[in-house]
Amino acid sequence: MIRHPLHRLRVLFLCAVLLAGGCATLQPDPLPSWSEGPARQAIVDFVRQATDSASARFVPADRRIATFDQDGTLWVEQPMYAQVMFALDRVRDVVRAQPALAGEEPFKTVLSGDRAAMAKLTERDLFRIVAASEGGVSTDEFQEIVKRWLATAKHPRFQRPYTDLVYAPMLEAMKYLRANGYRTYIVTGGGQQFVRAFAEEVYGIPPEQVVGTMFKLNYEKRDGKPTLMQAPEIFFVDDKGGKPVGINMVIGRRPQAAFGNSDGDQQMLEWAAGGAGAHLAMIVLHDDAAREYAYGPAAGQPDSKVGTFTQALHDEAKKSGWIVISMQRDWKRVFAFER
Amino acid sequence: MIRHPLHRLRVLFLCAVLLAGGCATLQPDPLPSWSEGPARQAIVDFVRQATDSASARFVPADRRIATFDQDGTLWVEQPMYAQVMFALDRVRDVVRAQPALAGEEPFKTVLSGDRAAMAKLTERDLFRIVAASEGGVSTDEFQEIVKRWLATAKHPRFQRPYTDLVYAPMLEAMKYLRANGYRTYIVTGGGQQFVRAFAEEVYGIPPEQVVGTMFKLNYEKRDGKPTLMQAPEIFFVDDKGGKPVGINMVIGRRPQAAFGNSDGDQQMLEWAAGGAGAHLAMIVLHDDAAREYAYGPAAGQPDSKVGTFTQALHDEAKKSGWIVISMQRDWKRVFAFER
Repeated sequence: MIRHPLHRLRVLFLCAVLLAGGCATLQPDPLPSWSEGPARQAIVDFVRQATDSASARFVPADRRIATFDQDGTLWVEQPMYAQVMFALDRVRDVVRAQPALAGEEPFKTVLSGDRAAMAKLTERDLFRIVAASEGGVSTDEFQEIVKRWLATAKHPRFQRPYTDLVYAPMLEAMKYLRANGYRTYIVTGGGQQFVRAFAEEVYGIPPEQVVGTMFKLNYEKRDGKPTLMQAPEIFFVDDKGGKPVGINMVIGRRPQAAFGNSDGDQQMLEWAAGGAGAHLAMIVLHDDAAREYAYGPAAGQPDSKVGTFTQALHDEAKKSGWIVISMQRDWKRVFAFER
Repeated sequence: MIRHPLHRLRVLFLCAVLLAGGCATLQPDPLPSWSEGPARQAIVDFVRQATDSASARFVPADRRIATFDQDGTLWVEQPMYAQVMFALDRVRDVVRAQPALAGEEPFKTVLSGDRAAMAKLTERDLFRIVAASEGGVSTDEFQEIVKRWLATAKHPRFQRPYTDLVYAPMLEAMKYLRANGYRTYIVTGGGQQFVRAFAEEVYGIPPEQVVGTMFKLNYEKRDGKPTLMQAPEIFFVDDKGGKPVGINMVIGRRPQAAFGNSDGDQQMLEWAAGGAGAHLAMIVLHDDAAREYAYGPAAGQPDSKVGTFTQALHDEAKKSGWIVISMQRDWKRVFAFER
């Protein structure tokens, strides 16, 4: 039988098509914890546009930046920010180093162990406790102190380490973005040093990709050794309008994707959404009391102490085409420890 | 002829040896502008130790960080820092935007064009002029303004753009370090935004790897568009003890190699030299009046307005085993434009 010389080419072509199809089918779903829906679709569409060099919204690989708020966006922030829990637990050590604080508020109340009184501490009180928890130690010592705390502390409701309470869908989104050339940054109102202590292990995010609230550092020689000492004094608040500023300080580029959950993130979302090329702004709505918490607009309590998802933010999101992630509808699984 | 079965193996081995030798010979010298001597040798030894996994001083690839001061370390800082020249040239535009400044010192003196009077401006005056040059524009506008200036301004002695006055040996050292897994950062007392405007093109250093003095930024909406506006107000001085602090803010890791030229770099050098693993601290000594400048200890003028290489720094260097780079002896070529 004489075969047409193109036969071989046809066979090869067929094989290639089959292989390509096979690959697509075999490739594991990069977002298995996300339900089909507009939130998941927005992420996939964003990545497709940004990485398609034929698209008008293409973004060159070295410019691909995605920023993530932490508390309430990457992990649980209820009933209180983990860093505040850490700072409360550290008050005894702080007072041991500075005994005069024992008689001063808010430290006196914390030392009393009176839970009703502690619940009444104001945001300012809590901030003072956090600042005190950062002071008086070197940056290296602080990393160790935070790591030790995370290894033993448990979340009051879930009775698990805080680092277990990271949202599985967000870890997947981060990995998916990284696999598509994005550098992922945490941009948190929490302390930069605090978050650096676990960001690499928990999120795969190295210290240079953590932007956060900064306390004053002083370079000193301690026993002749160069040391960076932490002072209990605020240097930079990485929240609201501070987030784009912190992004400029540490990254010097404008992100195209931003993920947040509160009005502390609004300016970062605006900043990311307002640039050229493909962009994506997403807000986590906590509307899942069963698996996590329901608060903010979902529970008619826009003014809780943490993560204020205000009506204004909701309106802005709608107006600007930002994507609201409903924990209940958009996430098949909230935590990695769920089956 | 019957050959021993090992013959083939021997031939293969011989070929491999020849090829390996051939490769070593063919590999171009990564530091062609450096003369043979202790400075060049220190760089080569440092890289060999840091990258040899069998060495006790091995540093894992993801921790390899090298920091470089800019003025006087990477490019010419005489007769005055390029950024001050820029700021002086920009006074007219600053006064146009804020006419009240025309009657105020030091702006009045600069506008007068009286060179003798300008030479008498104090460091504080110059700093005020630099701060004014940063203010009143967005971060994006400022990048364009600096780029335009660099495209036309010429150095008074060399009559070339400032970006031509980068030291070829330092560019080679940067590339060599990068080829060996180092991330190279600029850590400058100069303005972070100013240096970012050319660092990528001139040094191959992206914006997120530029640490510098920071002026206040304000997030605003201008004509409804999110904007980062620069204020003429200091936020962070990246000099002396501020250098290790700036390194922590932006990098969050301790460098193992640092390059400087003045007492503004001493703490950065201490910080890099004081950690674990292979480390390297180098100081450029300007002792070459013919090809560049001679100042500091080389000229018995330790208190020039720029780049103060004090006797104390010299003593510290000797005591700590830091390597002094003699421009005259250690650099075959200073600028890339030399043959």
